Amino acid sequence: MVKVVFLAGIICFLIPRFFFSQEVRTANSQLLGFTNGSSERQRGLERQFDGYLDRENLRAWMQRLTARPHHTGSTYDKENAEFIASQFKNWGYETTIEEFHVLFPTPKTRLLEMLEPEKFVPKLAEPVLPEDPTSNQTSEQLPIYNAYSIDGDVTAELVYVNYGMPKDYEELDQRGIDVKGKVVIARYGGGWRGIKPKVAAEHGAIGCIIYSDPRDDGYFQGDIYPKGAYRNEYGAQRGSVKDAPLYSGDPLTPFIGATKNARRLSLKEAKTLTKIPVLPISYADALPLLKTLGGPIAPESWRGALPTTYHLGPGPTKIHLKIEFNWDIVPIYNVIAKLKGYEYPDEWIIRGNHHDAWVNGADDPVSGLVAMMEEARAISELAKTGWTPNRTIIYAAWDAEEQGLLGSTEWAEMHADALKTKGVVYINSDSNGRGFLYVGGLHTLEKFVNQIAKDVTDPQTKVSVAERARAHIIVQGTSEEQKEVRDRDDLHIYALGSGSDYTPFIQHLGIASLNIGYGGEDGGGSYHSIYDSYAHYTRFGDPTFEYGVALAQTTGRAVLRLASAEILPFEFSNFAETVGKYVKEVSKLTDDMREETEELNRRIKERSLALAANPTQTYIVPKPKEPVPFLNFAPLQNAVTTLERSAKEYDQEMKNLKEKGGELVARQKKALNGILLKIEQASTRREGLPRRPWYRHQIYAPGMYTGYGVKTLPAVREAIEQRYWTEANEQIEVVAKVIEGFAREIDRAKAILKEGVK
Amino acid sequence: MVKVVFLAGIICFLIPRFFFSQEVRTANSQLLGFTNGSSERQRGLERQFDGYLDRENLRAWMQRLTARPHHTGSTYDKENAEFIASQFKNWGYETTIEEFHVLFPTPKTRLLEMLEPEKFVPKLAEPVLPEDPTSNQTSEQLPIYNAYSIDGDVTAELVYVNYGMPKDYEELDQRGIDVKGKVVIARYGGGWRGIKPKVAAEHGAIGCIIYSDPRDDGYFQGDIYPKGAYRNEYGAQRGSVKDAPLYSGDPLTPFIGATKNARRLSLKEAKTLTKIPVLPISYADALPLLKTLGGPIAPESWRGALPTTYHLGPGPTKIHLKIEFNWDIVPIYNVIAKLKGYEYPDEWIIRGNHHDAWVNGADDPVSGLVAMMEEARAISELAKTGWTPNRTIIYAAWDAEEQGLLGSTEWAEMHADALKTKGVVYINSDSNGRGFLYVGGLHTLEKFVNQIAKDVTDPQTKVSVAERARAHIIVQGTSEEQKEVRDRDDLHIYALGSGSDYTPFIQHLGIASLNIGYGGEDGGGSYHSIYDSYAHYTRFGDPTFEYGVALAQTTGRAVLRLASAEILPFEFSNFAETVGKYVKEVSKLTDDMREETEELNRRIKERSLALAANPTQTYIVPKPKEPVPFLNFAPLQNAVTTLERSAKEYDQEMKNLKEKGGELVARQKKALNGILLKIEQASTRREGLPRRPWYRHQIYAPGMYTGYGVKTLPAVREAIEQRYWTEANEQIEVVAKVIEGFAREIDRAKAILKEGVK
Repeated sequence: MVKVVFLAGIICFLIPRFFFSQEVRTANSQLLGFTNGSSERQRGLERQFDGYLDRENLRAWMQRLTARPHHTGSTYDKENAEFIASQFKNWGYETTIEEFHVLFPTPKTRLLEMLEPEKFVPKLAEPVLPEDPTSNQTSEQLPIYNAYSIDGDVTAELVYVNYGMPKDYEELDQRGIDVKGKVVIARYGGGWRGIKPKVAAEHGAIGCIIYSDPRDDGYFQGDIYPKGAYRNEYGAQRGSVKDAPLYSGDPLTPFIGATKNARRLSLKEAKTLTKIPVLPISYADALPLLKTLGGPIAPESWRGALPTTYHLGPGPTKIHLKIEFNWDIVPIYNVIAKLKGYEYPDEWIIRGNHHDAWVNGADDPVSGLVAMMEEARAISELAKTGWTPNRTIIYAAWDAEEQGLLGSTEWAEMHADALKTKGVVYINSDSNGRGFLYVGGLHTLEKFVNQIAKDVTDPQTKVSVAERARAHIIVQGTSEEQKEVRDRDDLHIYALGSGSDYTPFIQHLGIASLNIGYGGEDGGGSYHSIYDSYAHYTRFGDPTFEYGVALAQTTGRAVLRLASAEILPFEFSNFAETVGKYVKEVSKLTDDMREETEELNRRIKERSLALAANPTQTYIVPKPKEPVPFLNFAPLQNAVTTLERSAKEYDQEMKNLKEKGGELVARQKKALNGILLKIEQASTRREGLPRRPWYRHQIYAPGMYTGYGVKTLPAVREAIEQRYWTEANEQIEVVAKVIEGFAREIDRAKAILKEGVK
Repeated sequence: MVKVVFLAGIICFLIPRFFFSQEVRTANSQLLGFTNGSSERQRGLERQFDGYLDRENLRAWMQRLTARPHHTGSTYDKENAEFIASQFKNWGYETTIEEFHVLFPTPKTRLLEMLEPEKFVPKLAEPVLPEDPTSNQTSEQLPIYNAYSIDGDVTAELVYVNYGMPKDYEELDQRGIDVKGKVVIARYGGGWRGIKPKVAAEHGAIGCIIYSDPRDDGYFQGDIYPKGAYRNEYGAQRGSVKDAPLYSGDPLTPFIGATKNARRLSLKEAKTLTKIPVLPISYADALPLLKTLGGPIAPESWRGALPTTYHLGPGPTKIHLKIEFNWDIVPIYNVIAKLKGYEYPDEWIIRGNHHDAWVNGADDPVSGLVAMMEEARAISELAKTGWTPNRTIIYAAWDAEEQGLLGSTEWAEMHADALKTKGVVYINSDSNGRGFLYVGGLHTLEKFVNQIAKDVTDPQTKVSVAERARAHIIVQGTSEEQKEVRDRDDLHIYALGSGSDYTPFIQHLGIASLNIGYGGEDGGGSYHSIYDSYAHYTRFGDPTFEYGVALAQTTGRAVLRLASAEILPFEFSNFAETVGKYVKEVSKLTDDMREETEELNRRIKERSLALAANPTQTYIVPKPKEPVPFLNFAPLQNAVTTLERSAKEYDQEMKNLKEKGGELVARQKKALNGILLKIEQASTRREGLPRRPWYRHQIYAPGMYTGYGVKTLPAVREAIEQRYWTEANEQIEVVAKVIEGFAREIDRAKAILKEGVK
């Protein structure tokens, strides 16, 4: 999964304005999608549900599931799938294991050596620690490597490229440093790892090393393992480096399910493999390489926490990197468990968490998985009492997430038609730990999530998790966020990019999704290493499993409310407001770029850049940039106005319905829910985004050069960022039409509401 | 001297707006204080002066003066004074060596050891390097120590206090950490070193270690010596730690010259000695102490570049620190050289640079000293051609600056009466190196300095040093500074706090002062170490001595113009504008504090601080603060209005005089110059600042808790910062009266100008 950075502004929920009171607020407002009476009943059901949750189950399952390495394709991965399936079966779910066959390279050769100015051979291995009992399972552990790197054998001088993001290469250009024909060494962080070899290759590099700098991931952050939680000197980060922003899932089967006999691309045709060989290393392994680098001093913000002066190169450090893989097709196992809905069996509430790990994976993903299992078990207990959901609930434990959301993507592609007709919502979780609630998702669900967060109690402080999240933003947020959190009824949920299994649902199929977890007080550093173990997690993650239970309470409420709601609890005012904000952002982005361009060109012309430079160091004055034209944002602005009006009118009709005591008959409810179920698909286009048709959602996508990080209004925003002005103007019109289409769907829903008003 | 941090906003000078042209602008505007004709003659004189400057002299003198350690009280310090005096004599200056007798402690015992959790004895010595030929003069080198630390013998647990500034202790408070009875370890930086033991003692600490963290001063900045310029692992920073913001100079003789038989305070009475023992150490010596510290992790901004996790303590690290000093009174030698003025012999233009060093002192202070000597020699060459200055020029090479401006302060105190009558301007320099011009000083001289900067050519880029400084601000400054540098005719000069020999002149006597130097492209790291050597300076400081010549050209012009001007070149519009800015600042400071206080109290009341904290870590919610009242800034605002009007009217009369072809007769000129000469004293009060009567200037002072850093409108600003609201209101009235008094002096000067207009 993506490592979520806990800072300002990614958290959420409904809170009365004014100051906190010391009493724990009990939520007695009417639930979205319910009537007054059914709200009460629903809350009763949830109290019952809470009563079934037992944190000792989470602990026992985690111990069981993390007892051995269980990466994609491993024996224990399959055994885990079977264990999970057997549990769901025992609880009464209609359970299957759905198998796919995906490309999964494992290393045959991993050779890295420094040839000059001195010989050095990195260890490329994480040491066994007596304090961590599973760290000694060396024969079953995947070695340190990056999946979907191509094979390669390169020898060249080394260049340090900071995080290896596009803007880093602008800095190198200004210092006259070209990576063409060189091997680059980038530190982890600053953007998704898969972007690093992609951008390096675009600039002509022939190999890429990625290391964990202790500034970002090691002793600078805190005591290192096993003394503390953080990455130790030989700890390294495995991970996928495929070009995920192009398409998700198996590299060989875009758009279709990777069944045994699916039509596959050849390796050569697979566009998401890297163009150059890539290898991740530890900071102990990186230090000798960096220490010997010559050339200019790295810019201040590029310097990490290693005890050396950071230079850029190229050379004299010379590297030999040789990597070869077994390019196997391996079976993967998704566990799919259903509890059939009574009233709307063809409306699916899907809840998922992956089960595969890079090694033992206690935090990633088992911490989230065991919470989901306990949630499912508690729901089965409700079912034993005679309760039945109105809608069908589907639990999914995905395989092969770590290589790039393979299990979820292949399943979503395989069942695309059914999902587009039946999929109401997809609720995802992944790693979970002690701390604050964070929720990402579709803004049509923002109010819904805010209601839930007000009803769940934080295990440590005993206020609601919403109240605690709000305090966190007030204390840690930017001044703008602080102000907003006090002025706005709902806390924001963050927009989804990529990095976990919601991507195929939201971005490929247009199914409203949520990503929910707790964290921020759990110590990092075990991510994708052999130390992501039960021993580590129970010291630093969530030792009491209280936050596992809090997650089950949160996502469980989401599932139960969605499964039981009379009218699906989508709401459009927050969505319209948020889209309006995005439109302002892309407009401001253009203005800012215009101003920056003017300033840059002015500095070139007036020679201030040349005169301020240190004449004893190489400095290449950048070339002037084309001025940024004014774009016509009117279509988007008008579309947002339309959307806002539709949202407001829908709210008004809903209010009328409640206040004037109207009611919808079954037929009307079904029709309304049918519209709401598919409404998110109105945000997608079959053609997808420019140059990446797999990504169809027009409001949210992972960035072409961020990988995980979201770009909202991606077609417009990325055209602007890439300075494709014609395309930007075109996409403004395209996206405006999409938004108008969405507004029309709201209007259709509104019309049905209106029928019900007496 | 103070280590100047080269960043935004400390640079200066007159530049036409619009963009730079490639031609070197020749300045042909009329010089301030001259008529059209005399301007031309003056510029001719300056060209002649430039022709005499020979950088080989700088090199030879530096070699001679840095050949051996020459700290206060050393044999070679005296030999250097005699050498400098002999040179001035040879050049025809009326030269004396003025001797004072000052308290100068040197260490008898320096014992530092870690007792727990393991034994460790720091080296406390800088290694001899073959690449640095004078580094082996160990018998003559002062050891690593802080002057004016008291004797002490303490054993206690250690606490890490970041930079040891007041706000750092607020952070410790919030983490429940008390330094009472502990030894603190602070890193250099973040404020003047003397503040660290002062604040530590105020919080109950019993000892203080100061170390150079490689983040601020070592390998993080660049390659370490001898490979590069930066401080190596055993390099350490000597320096004075007396309570300089109380009074400058010899601790035993405040207000009076430290002559042999001066009435001295006892050691016990001397308020500027530290309250606890202090010792500076290297980062190699600090690492084992920091590595063993326990307790909470240090806040992120507190973490340096050592390869360890920074903890706060207290303990388990236990320290034994024992220091004893020889509390000697030693003779010091100021070289004073005069060239008598022809027309106004009793108007003195004073130009100074210290000659003592901590060890060999090539950069600090010899780089500035040799430039001053060459400037003086060139002026003597002018004199040989028959030219005579209108005013008397006094060159001063100060001793004992490093211990706290002792030479200059004792001289200024000794000659206070004469200086108040005759002292026109004091122009200081100190360390000098390759890079950008920086000028600090009185804003009545801002226009004057801007004119000079336009007339000096940058050796590397061949544009004027003003133009290069302007480019530097555009590229490195804040967006506000960038905007202003393009919109304003003159570049700002920075306000003087303390840190070099201008302090007694400006802050004690009210003599308009300037501090001028070049730097920003010279590699740091030799500061106050045995490696501040000829070898280091000629590799990293100013290898060609071109910037030494540029300094001589700059300060030489200042001296020549001031010595020759018909009317002293003070100007008041920039001063009035700047004071107006300060008034806005203190008003905004109060508003900001009010807002922060309200926000803090709100967070305490709403419990967001408590709820956002990590319950597994100690967090003490701060106590609510008293609300910040509204102060009556009207007196200051009205005074500034008066000042602005007076300044404008003076300018208008000057313009009238020039444009309408008027002229002042000799008597009028003399009267006008007499007013201008003393005008800066109108900014002083005999009573001085609250709690520190030695500091008399009401516009500029070093801060009580910054040490070097300036506090403008100090009586008002510091009362606000310390939340002394009654005092703040009182001081607003006091300072307003001072400003009004200054305006009246301008009016008197204006009246004379008016007499001259036809």
